[in-house]
Amino acid sequence: MCQYPKHVQLKEVGPRDGLQNENVFIDTDDKIKWINMLSESGVQEIEYSSFVHPKWIPALADARDVGRRIKRNPNVSYSALVPNLKGLDHALETGIDAASVFMSASETHNQKNINKSIDETYPVLKKVIQEAKTAGKFVTGYISTVFDCPYEGRISPEQAVAVCDQLFDYGVDSISLGDTIGSAVPSQVEALLDHVLSRYSQEKIIMHFHDTRGMAIANIMTSIQYGITRFDSSVGGLGGCPYAKGAAGNVATNDVLYLLHGLGIETGIKEEKIQQAALYIQDKLGKRLPSKALAYQLSNFKKTV
Amino acid sequence: MCQYPKHVQLKEVGPRDGLQNENVFIDTDDKIKWINMLSESGVQEIEYSSFVHPKWIPALADARDVGRRIKRNPNVSYSALVPNLKGLDHALETGIDAASVFMSASETHNQKNINKSIDETYPVLKKVIQEAKTAGKFVTGYISTVFDCPYEGRISPEQAVAVCDQLFDYGVDSISLGDTIGSAVPSQVEALLDHVLSRYSQEKIIMHFHDTRGMAIANIMTSIQYGITRFDSSVGGLGGCPYAKGAAGNVATNDVLYLLHGLGIETGIKEEKIQQAALYIQDKLGKRLPSKALAYQLSNFKKTV
Repeated sequence: MCQYPKHVQLKEVGPRDGLQNENVFIDTDDKIKWINMLSESGVQEIEYSSFVHPKWIPALADARDVGRRIKRNPNVSYSALVPNLKGLDHALETGIDAASVFMSASETHNQKNINKSIDETYPVLKKVIQEAKTAGKFVTGYISTVFDCPYEGRISPEQAVAVCDQLFDYGVDSISLGDTIGSAVPSQVEALLDHVLSRYSQEKIIMHFHDTRGMAIANIMTSIQYGITRFDSSVGGLGGCPYAKGAAGNVATNDVLYLLHGLGIETGIKEEKIQQAALYIQDKLGKRLPSKALAYQLSNFKKTV
Repeated sequence: MCQYPKHVQLKEVGPRDGLQNENVFIDTDDKIKWINMLSESGVQEIEYSSFVHPKWIPALADARDVGRRIKRNPNVSYSALVPNLKGLDHALETGIDAASVFMSASETHNQKNINKSIDETYPVLKKVIQEAKTAGKFVTGYISTVFDCPYEGRISPEQAVAVCDQLFDYGVDSISLGDTIGSAVPSQVEALLDHVLSRYSQEKIIMHFHDTRGMAIANIMTSIQYGITRFDSSVGGLGGCPYAKGAAGNVATNDVLYLLHGLGIETGIKEEKIQQAALYIQDKLGKRLPSKALAYQLSNFKKTV
């Protein structure tokens, strides 16, 4: 039988990665109320918004207002996405414990997403990382499309590791490896982690899965077998692709908790609080979220076995 | 890295386990057309219906008509569920390659489902198994609630193994271990397979997962790591609990194929054929099926990346 870690740490990315992929703008007061609910769930990290220009992510145009008005729980580390020095300045003014920088392992995806080549992106991120570290903040580097790119297809572990090397060299504390299009299967996770963990220790690596094709929980299991103990997830599986009715977004925090707690792994997170937060945002979005654990929990309100 | 098997064999149970849990009666002509589609997908086993009394499973009241009129592909083994000698006689008259008998590892679930205690069920199944073997048929024993029972809670591996022992003793060729309520996590699969595989070889054991809480694909991964190469699955994830809107049924054949083919494991099944069959039955049921791979595939018809 597999040996499981005692504790796994989740970062709740629903307020950022989840909402940025939803078509509906959630009213700022509602967002704040919702993030405050998440802050009381026991989760240790919350990414509350993005300081990318509102032109690119209109759903998160209220990042400053949200950041100023959420009730900060001293047991939670609050992060925000920052694309450049200006974004970092706004985030620092607003209040962050950690900054998240981002780029792609795929040249084409990076170009489409950031409007720069990978080589043009590095010096920008270097400055952001160094200024954030100077300000005493933790820094996470998100690397997207580490397995597959919607434009280029399969991405080699070497390509992803090359980006890891640069970002660690610039001083990031940890790297979050993103299956942005939710296409990976466990053998791809194994191949990448074989490479990454030959260079970096497990506690520096976060895995970030989308559940687009229903593989995320299996990929998390495989990551755990490799000693990974940090994952990003999103309440209810928020963030389904706007083009894909019924397609899932980030792996659902609810499903991850069902898995981890079932395996006897502690997270410090209360499942019923996450369920309440999922119901709250589901109601505001006016659509059912894709989490299966959530759908089951909801059905049980009406059901007598 | 994990060593994966070269080939995994799926049994398509949508026409039986899927439909028996749906509220809508699918017209017999539509069922036949659909099973004929499945017969051309490359799948090697199809459970086409159940010869349980129609009072108990009205959705499958047309088992004889279906069995007589489907077009038999010589490369497919056709099975049906049989509860007793009368059911077996009907199935033999109608035409089966394999008979499936069933009972629970949980005393209470067996009582509620079959209206007999476990000890009262054994002699009934013994006769059915022996008569089916005499008729030259393969026999599979389904054991349900091998992990958790909705009435009794956790079921010990010893309880499940005790039922395995009896059914193998009566002559079944293989046993399908069912996570009937879709509650298991991989550590439970490990605990059960540690017991079962210390007594029986992997090729005699089929794993049957429901995806109620989104754990099925991870449980299949764990089973594969234990050398299991046979799984039951259902087109589109058919068979969601009638009480649970959005809750999933059997693990979706579509999702399992995405996993297996992604791992480089052959199944002989063409994904697009399964997708077509899923679309067909989804249309007849008038509701979206829970498979995430299917939802993604559908979204791609409308999407330009």
